[in-house]
Amino acid sequence: MPQRDGSPLGDVEALVFDVFGTVVDWHGTVVRELEALGRAHAVEADWPRFANRWRQGYIEGILHVIAGQTPWKLVDEIHRERLGPLLEEAGLATKLGPIETEDLNRVWHRLDPWPDSVAGLRRLESRWVIATLSNGNVSLLVDMAKRARLPWNCILSAEMIGRYKPDPEVYRWAARVLGREPHQIALVAAHPPDLEAARGVGLRTLYVSRPLEYGPGREAAFPVSGNEFDLHAVDLVDLAAKLEPHAG
Amino acid sequence: MPQRDGSPLGDVEALVFDVFGTVVDWHGTVVRELEALGRAHAVEADWPRFANRWRQGYIEGILHVIAGQTPWKLVDEIHRERLGPLLEEAGLATKLGPIETEDLNRVWHRLDPWPDSVAGLRRLESRWVIATLSNGNVSLLVDMAKRARLPWNCILSAEMIGRYKPDPEVYRWAARVLGREPHQIALVAAHPPDLEAARGVGLRTLYVSRPLEYGPGREAAFPVSGNEFDLHAVDLVDLAAKLEPHAG
Repeated sequence: MPQRDGSPLGDVEALVFDVFGTVVDWHGTVVRELEALGRAHAVEADWPRFANRWRQGYIEGILHVIAGQTPWKLVDEIHRERLGPLLEEAGLATKLGPIETEDLNRVWHRLDPWPDSVAGLRRLESRWVIATLSNGNVSLLVDMAKRARLPWNCILSAEMIGRYKPDPEVYRWAARVLGREPHQIALVAAHPPDLEAARGVGLRTLYVSRPLEYGPGREAAFPVSGNEFDLHAVDLVDLAAKLEPHAG
Repeated sequence: MPQRDGSPLGDVEALVFDVFGTVVDWHGTVVRELEALGRAHAVEADWPRFANRWRQGYIEGILHVIAGQTPWKLVDEIHRERLGPLLEEAGLATKLGPIETEDLNRVWHRLDPWPDSVAGLRRLESRWVIATLSNGNVSLLVDMAKRARLPWNCILSAEMIGRYKPDPEVYRWAARVLGREPHQIALVAAHPPDLEAARGVGLRTLYVSRPLEYGPGREAAFPVSGNEFDLHAVDLVDLAAKLEPHAG
């Protein structure tokens, strides 16, 4: 095992990552695909707003499942349910055939990483176990990682336990299957509610700022100030540098 | 997605792998560690026999869980239970301290791959989704893959569903979380009972012979003849070659 003496993380042995927004740029990727479809079908619309409302629909869908208002649904299914009305409103619904619509729904399987993500993850993987801990379904996370060459040691998905973050059981399960105590695991995320839930069950918390998550000129949904979490970084390369012993 | 026209596998999109014996050489690795411990503590014993009985103890432990005779136990726990009596019998029990004993139990986390495994898996990973489908617990599979650089796209473990192969639900679950129909998945394994159970729920079956699994001069537990499975290969590089279109 690599030496971790002097690391600010103490006895942490594995890092688990939020994915949407933290590792990959969902907004930019979805907007680029929508713009291309709009050009192809001669349809104009506010695509950044479409992307953000689609994402908001996902968040609402997850919260309905957590609240028990709807039965379990995969993220792919939640995305598909929310896509129809947005296509109608944008004037694209009648232009796209069923295959093109299903393919657009799978844009979430091919999100581009932030420019620092692959380099940062590689550097982190050389010292720690790195795994996803995402609400995305398994096939979504596998397709995304394979396409973008994200060097995960393990794909952990809410689908595997049938509960969505921020349900505390998801974080406990991650520590258990990685064979570690909660304090030996750290969550890396750009979203304070995710980090707060992880901290609530004893995980360490590493915040990465992603000011462009919702697109240029849009404020982060959850502003973070000061030193709320165990470590704050501006991207994953910065995180790797800050976790190395000489930076402790 | 890569083109698979002409592949003998038809519409298969993901390969799932048995691990112990199929991808890694448990016998050789465990014997080497036992021999080193024997030398260090001046103890002589039949280490190949020790390794094979330890493995047999694992198989019995799994079968007890499947039969409902014992509650769920991780493979790490089954190995640990079986290790004590074997150490006693070999005269090593009083020589090893608790840390050394626990470390020996974790030899299953650091099994060496067969010489063809990493090259074969890399070649397969360039065309298909590749995942483990093992009774080994998640941390065991993650530690093994990280050390040996096995390029899995996804770690699927019996631990995640709480059932052991050859329970048919394990194979169905693998197809489901990979987002595919059973006929779009193939199991790669050196053990006919595993392949037969996978075939029973509709997976395709790829047999790899591993004549040295139990050590030199020992016969395979389950001889295979003819063309029982969809494809027979002598190792994972041979499998990759046979699955490529020009070989179809």
